Amino acid sequence: MGDTTIRPEIQSLIDQVKFDDKGLVPCICQDAATGEVLMFAFMNRESLGITLERGLACYYSRSRGKLWLKGESSGHTQKIKDIRLDCDADCLLIKVEQQGAACHTGYRSCFYRHRDAADTWAPDGEPLFSQNEMDAKYGKK
Amino acid sequence: MGDTTIRPEIQSLIDQVKFDDKGLVPCICQDAATGEVLMFAFMNRESLGITLERGLACYYSRSRGKLWLKGESSGHTQKIKDIRLDCDADCLLIKVEQQGAACHTGYRSCFYRHRDAADTWAPDGEPLFSQNEMDAKYGKK
Repeated sequence: MGDTTIRPEIQSLIDQVKFDDKGLVPCICQDAATGEVLMFAFMNRESLGITLERGLACYYSRSRGKLWLKGESSGHTQKIKDIRLDCDADCLLIKVEQQGAACHTGYRSCFYRHRDAADTWAPDGEPLFSQNEMDAKYGKK
Repeated sequence: MGDTTIRPEIQSLIDQVKFDDKGLVPCICQDAATGEVLMFAFMNRESLGITLERGLACYYSRSRGKLWLKGESSGHTQKIKDIRLDCDADCLLIKVEQQGAACHTGYRSCFYRHRDAADTWAPDGEPLFSQNEMDAKYGKK
């Protein structure tokens, strides 16, 4: 994955993004068809380059300290339909065609909990996949 | 603003959110009616409490180092329609009724630029307000 060739015009796009002191930029991921916000993660220069060149979302996993081609394990890839930059050039928004579930819990979106009328963070809706199904996808079995 | 009373049930909601080592949590703001992602900012415990109690988006401005009741200067307030928490409890999503423009540039959304066919970050659409109109709203004249 790290051997992806980054063309000069793509390098120029990357150079206009402001990465933080850890070399990261936040990225919001939204379903291109429905507008549902699916997840939130970070990209570094390399993962943004791969995303722009391949047309598939690639993040940087802070917990694992490495590139994270979304769906590489689970098959739940994100095909890029649009990529946007905010006014301060320090946040990205990608609109994607999501395969399966964006969330490792099996819910389509990571934002499956909301403040309900009883003032609790309550799940809203049902997951697409059970935890057992998700564990199998990630080879945890 | 800092004198807003936080009820125990709201304090419990706040206590379940994971703030980072700077005491901040990222927050994605989305138009409740259209699904358009409007902006991205941070909240601290106090601004989240105010948001939950008042039903108006209140962020923490990292550049100004203080609470930021959105629209306080410009009138472009954000009324909360839904507030959601992600699977890791370290990112918020608010769905709002936006007055005017969310972006200080006069565009409705901060994410007004996108990668175009020529591989540049090109504005997509037109601003709601001119820069002069925005300056007037912020008292810059």
